[in-house]
Amino acid sequence: MGESERIPVGIIGASGYGGVQLVRLLLEHPQVEIAYLGGKGSAGKPYWDLYPHLSHLVNLTVEPIDLEVVASRCQVVFLGLPNGLACDMAPQLIAKGCKVLDLSADYRFRDLQTYTAWYNKDRSDTETAAKAVYGLPELYRTEIQSASLIGCPGCYPTASLMALSPLLKQGLILPETAIIDAKSGTSGGGRQEKIHLLLAEAEGSLGAYGVAKHRHTPEIEQVCSDLAGHEVKVQFTPHLIPMVRGILSTVYASLRDPGLVRDDILTIYSAFYRSSPFVKILPHGIYPQTKWAWGTNLCYIGIETDPRTDRVIVLSAIDNLMKGQAGQAVQCLNLMMGWEETLGLPQLSFYP
Amino acid sequence: MGESERIPVGIIGASGYGGVQLVRLLLEHPQVEIAYLGGKGSAGKPYWDLYPHLSHLVNLTVEPIDLEVVASRCQVVFLGLPNGLACDMAPQLIAKGCKVLDLSADYRFRDLQTYTAWYNKDRSDTETAAKAVYGLPELYRTEIQSASLIGCPGCYPTASLMALSPLLKQGLILPETAIIDAKSGTSGGGRQEKIHLLLAEAEGSLGAYGVAKHRHTPEIEQVCSDLAGHEVKVQFTPHLIPMVRGILSTVYASLRDPGLVRDDILTIYSAFYRSSPFVKILPHGIYPQTKWAWGTNLCYIGIETDPRTDRVIVLSAIDNLMKGQAGQAVQCLNLMMGWEETLGLPQLSFYP
Amino acid sequence: MGESERIPVGIIGASGYGGVQLVRLLLEHPQVEIAYLGGKGSAGKPYWDLYPHLSHLVNLTVEPIDLEVVASRCQVVFLGLPNGLACDMAPQLIAKGCKVLDLSADYRFRDLQTYTAWYNKDRSDTETAAKAVYGLPELYRTEIQSASLIGCPGCYPTASLMALSPLLKQGLILPETAIIDAKSGTSGGGRQEKIHLLLAEAEGSLGAYGVAKHRHTPEIEQVCSDLAGHEVKVQFTPHLIPMVRGILSTVYASLRDPGLVRDDILTIYSAFYRSSPFVKILPHGIYPQTKWAWGTNLCYIGIETDPRTDRVIVLSAIDNLMKGQAGQAVQCLNLMMGWEETLGLPQLSFYP
Amino acid sequence: MGESERIPVGIIGASGYGGVQLVRLLLEHPQVEIAYLGGKGSAGKPYWDLYPHLSHLVNLTVEPIDLEVVASRCQVVFLGLPNGLACDMAPQLIAKGCKVLDLSADYRFRDLQTYTAWYNKDRSDTETAAKAVYGLPELYRTEIQSASLIGCPGCYPTASLMALSPLLKQGLILPETAIIDAKSGTSGGGRQEKIHLLLAEAEGSLGAYGVAKHRHTPEIEQVCSDLAGHEVKVQFTPHLIPMVRGILSTVYASLRDPGLVRDDILTIYSAFYRSSPFVKILPHGIYPQTKWAWGTNLCYIGIETDPRTDRVIVLSAIDNLMKGQAGQAVQCLNLMMGWEETLGLPQLSFYP
Repeated sequence: MGESERIPVGIIGASGYGGVQLVRLLLEHPQVEIAYLGGKGSAGKPYWDLYPHLSHLVNLTVEPIDLEVVASRCQVVFLGLPNGLACDMAPQLIAKGCKVLDLSADYRFRDLQTYTAWYNKDRSDTETAAKAVYGLPELYRTEIQSASLIGCPGCYPTASLMALSPLLKQGLILPETAIIDAKSGTSGGGRQEKIHLLLAEAEGSLGAYGVAKHRHTPEIEQVCSDLAGHEVKVQFTPHLIPMVRGILSTVYASLRDPGLVRDDILTIYSAFYRSSPFVKILPHGIYPQTKWAWGTNLCYIGIETDPRTDRVIVLSAIDNLMKGQAGQAVQCLNLMMGWEETLGLPQLSFYP
Repeated sequence: MGESERIPVGIIGASGYGGVQLVRLLLEHPQVEIAYLGGKGSAGKPYWDLYPHLSHLVNLTVEPIDLEVVASRCQVVFLGLPNGLACDMAPQLIAKGCKVLDLSADYRFRDLQTYTAWYNKDRSDTETAAKAVYGLPELYRTEIQSASLIGCPGCYPTASLMALSPLLKQGLILPETAIIDAKSGTSGGGRQEKIHLLLAEAEGSLGAYGVAKHRHTPEIEQVCSDLAGHEVKVQFTPHLIPMVRGILSTVYASLRDPGLVRDDILTIYSAFYRSSPFVKILPHGIYPQTKWAWGTNLCYIGIETDPRTDRVIVLSAIDNLMKGQAGQAVQCLNLMMGWEETLGLPQLSFYP
Repeated sequence: MGESERIPVGIIGASGYGGVQLVRLLLEHPQVEIAYLGGKGSAGKPYWDLYPHLSHLVNLTVEPIDLEVVASRCQVVFLGLPNGLACDMAPQLIAKGCKVLDLSADYRFRDLQTYTAWYNKDRSDTETAAKAVYGLPELYRTEIQSASLIGCPGCYPTASLMALSPLLKQGLILPETAIIDAKSGTSGGGRQEKIHLLLAEAEGSLGAYGVAKHRHTPEIEQVCSDLAGHEVKVQFTPHLIPMVRGILSTVYASLRDPGLVRDDILTIYSAFYRSSPFVKILPHGIYPQTKWAWGTNLCYIGIETDPRTDRVIVLSAIDNLMKGQAGQAVQCLNLMMGWEETLGLPQLSFYP
Repeated sequence: MGESERIPVGIIGASGYGGVQLVRLLLEHPQVEIAYLGGKGSAGKPYWDLYPHLSHLVNLTVEPIDLEVVASRCQVVFLGLPNGLACDMAPQLIAKGCKVLDLSADYRFRDLQTYTAWYNKDRSDTETAAKAVYGLPELYRTEIQSASLIGCPGCYPTASLMALSPLLKQGLILPETAIIDAKSGTSGGGRQEKIHLLLAEAEGSLGAYGVAKHRHTPEIEQVCSDLAGHEVKVQFTPHLIPMVRGILSTVYASLRDPGLVRDDILTIYSAFYRSSPFVKILPHGIYPQTKWAWGTNLCYIGIETDPRTDRVIVLSAIDNLMKGQAGQAVQCLNLMMGWEETLGLPQLSFYP
């Protein structure tokens, strides 16, 4: 396939960390070309002014957000904007024939009342929202293939659901006992000027936030309820870790059948993820390090059972900006376009 | 009190991180003087050869371990050795009239069978062990005051028990639902040449270890069972965090009475720790950062309840080398000697 | 001296890192009490709202900046404001009888034209500026003792001048060959919401900034010229290091007499700093680590000569927020008040 | 080219950081296949036992070092061993027809007396050593193309020479004024169990080492002398930075012609590196961040002149394990085999 046949794609909201990961991935993706980079605060600037290390590879200028222009130039549009903005743009872009992948929370919820309750914004795009597919390929691969609008999952939900799904789907645990203790690097907070994200504040320290009220909770619960076949409430606690990238989710749940041992569960996970090229189930006694996933679209999963307490403990590690955000969006793009699922997505980290 | 009236103390195993914290604290403690520093591998070296930043303050040489010499020179001896060595030394030191504070696991267990099961070492010092007091002043202050042998708690148990104790003591939770997700800086691994503790390996990464089998589990359970009045099993999972110092314990448990709200529990904690000068209960919605405790003997505690799940979540932060180790040992010393509990112990961190 | 006899001091600009270090130090200083904390953006907030770890120790509220109020309440005022503001306040405070210690650049320059050239601000407080003393006690101890206005040195100049001064004072080097390659933790950038100070940006990375044009250059040169007895120009390059605190200055210069060896120079440094309790000259072959100075007012100095190139290399390490800022200001206060120079100033770091 | 036509390559000393980078790069290199991984301490272990994140990609076992076996199976052999071992193996491998790329210091020196003087090892492989080419493609591209033995440069010399070479080659500076202040992440110390490389020691700290005596000095000087056409001595000081990867070299030198300005020098550098695809000269006022090069084979160079001091300051940033080690070795391999110089070598970092 020649250069001229590449699919033109655009990114609205290209200046943040999600944006720059998308730029990075799409530059090396063999089937696409970046036809538009848009932003509000940085409109008019050469893109390498934001990210000088790209000066030899990207000579695009950040353009103002004009949906007419975007739609005329791009077949696919990624939206990397703060919550509450995509829902005003996606309907128009779709009406103009674009496929849309939204990285915000706007199209993650089947029930817009849940969205409104947790995100404090009323929504009128009910019709568009009804078409959106939750972009977690390991669970919704078929739906994604035929979708024109993807609500890309949050970083924490991705890591947490990868760990929890087989247990819920197979009915192995008592759902109400599920506790997710999640830990994230600070890039999850975005390229935003916030005091608590300064190196001087965050380095050498560790703390929880959003305890019992983080907005990723209903997103996790929506999928868990899907899998369990009834409404599920989970306990979810995020923590900020003094590192740039990576999420580790430590998931606890009580086994329905205490006779189940680690090997049984390993087998079940391997089967569940058999067709999922980015999921790596680790052998006995090996627990994932987030750095193993750095820069890749992989999810590493380690499993342990505790015969003393009849619980299963599942650990999942991802790169929050890749499998937790931009990488997963490209994975969805591959599926939507009928390309190989792994196209253009790194599977091999640099280590250390 | 004049210089000559200071109590002479010794440290066996002075070369590690526990040792150097003790040296740091005892140098500024108004009632003691360091009369002996002992070690095996570093015997014969000036102490500042191990820690050059102390060259202007410590001119002692590390001496070989000779218990006769130690006992003749010191009224109090701190043991900072690997597990399984203190139990061979403490009986002799006590017989010679020394007070002993052991930083290893050797004297933490009331039931030596538990020790043997988890630490793979048979013990013959039953009589000595029976006299040992578990050195967590917030729970065993009175016993410590009259003890001659202290088994200083592990770092994880300290953080975890500070968070859990009021709940168990007051019967507020279903004990079997308690889950402790703990996170520690790498100094908890000691000044040891281990690959996984290298900056190149641990920096920028995060992982669990010892899942469902860490040796601090039975130590936590022993105290929990004490408080609950019946045998309690807890789920305990430690994680290695890319930072030097600090432990955060995130503790989850189901409330016995779902009507209990955060304010009730804050009140109960404040009452429970009323006479404990190192415990700081944080106001609503503030969760502890480990860096706040850096270099101090403090334990910060934050509390949240989740009405959606009827759970309480308690977060406790300490400096693993201070309240989690050397600082707590000095706190015990103060109690044993009848001095003010806070003597010589920092309560104010440098931040950031 | 009783509590009631403590000297009342105030801090204008208490919300930044310099401010919180001052609060930390003054809280434990035996001769002062904090009578006023002032700020602009944070006026009206309880101080612990900015720094929750202090909630058990500080119950002051940040007040608006009203110089009448400040002067009526405080004998000594620390100014921790951005450059260009102190010069509007200091004249009034001094006129009202306060002693003033300014942490900004406003009173560091003897020649206000230099200030104006590098800081782009015209000045009319010539008379006040003429009274200001440069607050580097190791060089200007006597002048500080009788001063009422101190221009506290920048962090880089402090580290660099500690390393260079004996060489220049004794005429050991060719001044024009002096090169200062300085490295600082990110707290030197202040508690400011800046993208490049985010952990996600600065962690795991390293770069220079302000090459050949950093504002600390003329400050260093002013003192170097003083010491050399003629105008000296130095090369100064600052670098941002992925750590919170600490500055290392690596200073290179060609020896006037190539016959001079390391031991000679060690002897000269030891003599030069004989009466300076915070300077620690390291023995042969030991080079300072910034972490050794963490939280203290110390400056560690290591020295090497290179017989292959006839150069001397001097390495100095300080905590940029202590000896490089707040600690040094308190050291100056001690001298101004006739107290012991080391009063209330830590000399012993926690390590690691 | 089909899978079966790939060139078989081997790595002796595959367990260290150099080894794992080579494995990472060669796995994705389109023209080679890894036919042998050898090691001493880890012989007999599956390779993923050392690096579990590779378990889905590498199923090779580390084999004992048997040169017969290696040569029979591999056309090209990388040696990733401690200094002083390659010189015993390379002659045999070359005699058996292998091309050899040595990552140690053994074949970096034209004059074995220099090697012996700095590395304390006598050498008898004079004939083999005479054939070795210094593997810095930007300077010795032609020689590398026809070489059968490459002495791959050290990490510091790579960064430093990339910065210095155009200045020396064009005679723009006074060579004896050259000072190299270099800063490296801790992975440069290798996957070795050393106290000073522990996170607990190195994190949050910064220091120099090997001042005036580091072994990379003669290696830098050898090339500088080549370029200058006469013997050159440089001042080289390495520093350990609390980060995993990356080297920044800050190079200072006095301009021969003080009239030269930054733009002139930028032009000269651009011309000098015109045919070097991995060198990126940064525009005015932009200085390199080491993280920009993370995981790539790039070298970013920033340039400044100081009209106040008539000096030029050049800053170069590389990934010490890539352009500074394994990446550069693969770059040499590409040249030796007549492949495109950039084949299989990343040019685009993940950021942040």
